[in-house]
Amino acid sequence: MELNTAIKQLNDVDSKLHALNHAQAMIYWDGAIGAPKNSVEGRAKTLSILTGEYYNTLVNDDFNELLSFLQNNISNLDYITSKKVENFRNEYDKIAKIPQEDYSEYTAVQAKSGAAWEEAKEKNDFSIFAPHLEKVINYNKKFIEYRGFNKHPYNTLLDDYEKGITTDDLDEFFSELKNTIVPLVAKIKESGVDINTEFAYKHYDVKKQDKLNKKLLESIGFNMDSGLIEESVHPFTTNFNRNDVRITTHYYDNNVLSALYSTIHEGGHAIYEQNISEELEYSTLCGGTSMGIHESQSRFFENVIGRSYSFLEYLFPMVQEAFPENLSDVTAYDFYFAANESSPSLVRIEADELTYSLHIMIRYEIEKLLFENKVLVEDLPKLWNEKYHEYMGLTPKSDAEGILQDVHWSEGYFGYFPSYALGNAYASQFAHTMKNVIDFDEDLKNGNFDNINNWLHDNIHKHGKLLTPKEIIEKATGEPLNAKYYTKYLEEKYSKLYNLK
Amino acid sequence: MELNTAIKQLNDVDSKLHALNHAQAMIYWDGAIGAPKNSVEGRAKTLSILTGEYYNTLVNDDFNELLSFLQNNISNLDYITSKKVENFRNEYDKIAKIPQEDYSEYTAVQAKSGAAWEEAKEKNDFSIFAPHLEKVINYNKKFIEYRGFNKHPYNTLLDDYEKGITTDDLDEFFSELKNTIVPLVAKIKESGVDINTEFAYKHYDVKKQDKLNKKLLESIGFNMDSGLIEESVHPFTTNFNRNDVRITTHYYDNNVLSALYSTIHEGGHAIYEQNISEELEYSTLCGGTSMGIHESQSRFFENVIGRSYSFLEYLFPMVQEAFPENLSDVTAYDFYFAANESSPSLVRIEADELTYSLHIMIRYEIEKLLFENKVLVEDLPKLWNEKYHEYMGLTPKSDAEGILQDVHWSEGYFGYFPSYALGNAYASQFAHTMKNVIDFDEDLKNGNFDNINNWLHDNIHKHGKLLTPKEIIEKATGEPLNAKYYTKYLEEKYSKLYNLK
Repeated sequence: MELNTAIKQLNDVDSKLHALNHAQAMIYWDGAIGAPKNSVEGRAKTLSILTGEYYNTLVNDDFNELLSFLQNNISNLDYITSKKVENFRNEYDKIAKIPQEDYSEYTAVQAKSGAAWEEAKEKNDFSIFAPHLEKVINYNKKFIEYRGFNKHPYNTLLDDYEKGITTDDLDEFFSELKNTIVPLVAKIKESGVDINTEFAYKHYDVKKQDKLNKKLLESIGFNMDSGLIEESVHPFTTNFNRNDVRITTHYYDNNVLSALYSTIHEGGHAIYEQNISEELEYSTLCGGTSMGIHESQSRFFENVIGRSYSFLEYLFPMVQEAFPENLSDVTAYDFYFAANESSPSLVRIEADELTYSLHIMIRYEIEKLLFENKVLVEDLPKLWNEKYHEYMGLTPKSDAEGILQDVHWSEGYFGYFPSYALGNAYASQFAHTMKNVIDFDEDLKNGNFDNINNWLHDNIHKHGKLLTPKEIIEKATGEPLNAKYYTKYLEEKYSKLYNLK
Repeated sequence: MELNTAIKQLNDVDSKLHALNHAQAMIYWDGAIGAPKNSVEGRAKTLSILTGEYYNTLVNDDFNELLSFLQNNISNLDYITSKKVENFRNEYDKIAKIPQEDYSEYTAVQAKSGAAWEEAKEKNDFSIFAPHLEKVINYNKKFIEYRGFNKHPYNTLLDDYEKGITTDDLDEFFSELKNTIVPLVAKIKESGVDINTEFAYKHYDVKKQDKLNKKLLESIGFNMDSGLIEESVHPFTTNFNRNDVRITTHYYDNNVLSALYSTIHEGGHAIYEQNISEELEYSTLCGGTSMGIHESQSRFFENVIGRSYSFLEYLFPMVQEAFPENLSDVTAYDFYFAANESSPSLVRIEADELTYSLHIMIRYEIEKLLFENKVLVEDLPKLWNEKYHEYMGLTPKSDAEGILQDVHWSEGYFGYFPSYALGNAYASQFAHTMKNVIDFDEDLKNGNFDNINNWLHDNIHKHGKLLTPKEIIEKATGEPLNAKYYTKYLEEKYSKLYNLK
């Protein structure tokens, strides 16, 4: 085969897969923002056909041979093409090592498991879900066998969401978190400090919120010509390409904080996608490199920026101007406290900045035990409740608000949750480095995002999938993941907020 | 090959093509209702890849052989499968007879021609467009040669939009129209009757219009659980499947009629798509059978129903209730007159019900001459203007409002326009038959659409693409297309409106 022909074939497959992603994401987006009631079945049907088409385009002997040919000529390829080959080889092997038959069976198991989880949660009865969860776990164990693993079977799953991260990394990481956050949470409880948040939960007109949230989104650097914001039940970000990145938020008429922090969170994801290098445009390489790095961007904007006093000095006057009836007597300082109230809770998606990663830590400890065959599915609710009691000082009153709270396990998302905690830690590490070169707080006070977004662009965004998460961290900050930046950030922030010694 | 295997393969291709249509229509829809400014390029890129995928799925040796095999076994196939084979064979041959190379060249010619038309219209200079138009016409002539023709080369093009319709049919059809409508238009001009329309062009709040239009749409039988209405610059209907059919309308704050009649027009298209038989669901057979039959449904709702006095007795009170400030002194009778004002104009898309088909007739006469090589492209503006003078008594002041008014020729839509006039005629013929079995005017007065929609469902909608337009007309009305129902309807209606002798 001619090398040029092979490269053309590779690029054609790349473009086709990108187009299929675009189509699927568009149909999914449409379904989330208000499609007709009866459209559910047709949407599922088309998505399943497009998924099959994606699979068939990627996994076939011709493409396997093409990749091998290009791998043998890797030194003659330009940088981007070589990265495409590398990424497709990973994706190919991940799927192709699993026999098609097992994969089909697993898809059916997932579907049933999802329905069982829904019923179990509604009826608050873990036993409805347990046999399905066991099947999902067993399929994942089987897939690990097919795919092989390095040191620990769970590493294969972790690698799917955060390339290169291992249980060794995470054991050390969560140990640092546990040693810092658990005592911090206890101290806050003991402090007796009571933060006034009442003004944030008055009546807030949704149309005015919408206007305010759009203003916020633009002010942090989201390009409104290359994206938009809509409403949906659960906020999310989707990217069709770097010129069309969309987010949703959700407005509550009795809560001004919820939408603001959801918008700035999704805005962080979106700014990442809008700022990937133009040379990756319309390629499957044009996307965030991992879940953890993606989450680092959303958390950086939501927490490091959005919940900082400096930024609230800039943002609060806008909020006050939009809602003088609720906020005329409130100061930026009051608002800063309200936005940072910490209170341990049982439900991850309602967690505050400080306790969020504890939810993830519990999930990690349990998942690891599962893939070490050290816990039975039937014992999970008990184990879950014990860990919540130990780390948070709380015990779920029901499995619905305990082990059953999230859908993800029913869909087979094991190894997925740790990325959230990693994202938090990456965000602090990036902020630490960034502050050495730019006047971070001064910029935030003035609502000036040029320096911040340029730094993010140069060090993170522009690379798309060209670099792994580990490469990005090391290049950007000069060292590997170091949880201390995150724990130090939390200690300093919450010690001041709660007047701790 | 096993027959069952072959049928399964056919159905797989059918499902895949349906899914690709769904994806393309969704991306197109999204682009029309408010996608970000910079999304244009990415949308075009993905649409072009999906179009290529559609082409490759349909036109290949394997599918050709599969169709031939099934054609040889046609008597062993169930009715629907046999129709699928028939339809795909038509579609296959239409495309496959044209060499891929010519087809690609033509696509490029179309793109350039579209841009040239835009520039020509803006600069009011036909000479910019002429050489491109000539190329588009020549490609179409070449394609007719490849594809062959029956009696008249133009028949091959007509067949693409209205299967089975020939120049013989249309010569007779338009001759009947000319003999009736042209003198009728002249008589109205002489009558001196002046209809009061002033009240329809006062200030009409757009939000209130939106509410009213949704009410109208629901009242005529559009299923809001299986579709929705949005706003776009140019109103259109799109259908992803029978459970997800969407229309757009366009509101003007100084015109209450425009959106109402656009909504009921698109509603007619949409009700057709929503009511195709469930057994065709998610197949490419699940769609309107032809442009003409589709247009018959939109015109039936817009004109035969929407502009009838009976229906306005039902609708007007709703309009009046929404806008008492403009309509408290107006009666349903006044509104009926205003909605039916006839006045010859130069621009097709602004034409009233009476003169609309004259615009189409002129287009037909010119297109026929073009494909008989009896007129040169450079002479088109002169010929156009002469015909408008002869039939309408008007002469365009510029090519922009004359020969250049529509984009369609630049895209190669020849043989397309006659379907609009046929739709009008079919609508009258259906109405004539329907009135023999249901109490049409009484139902309209009461806003009762059960009988009307049941008749349309049984005789037209449910068949989808299972029947040709000719089969539908004959089965539904007991005779072939007969233009007299249309001309008689127009004569009666306008004689009364303008008090003609």
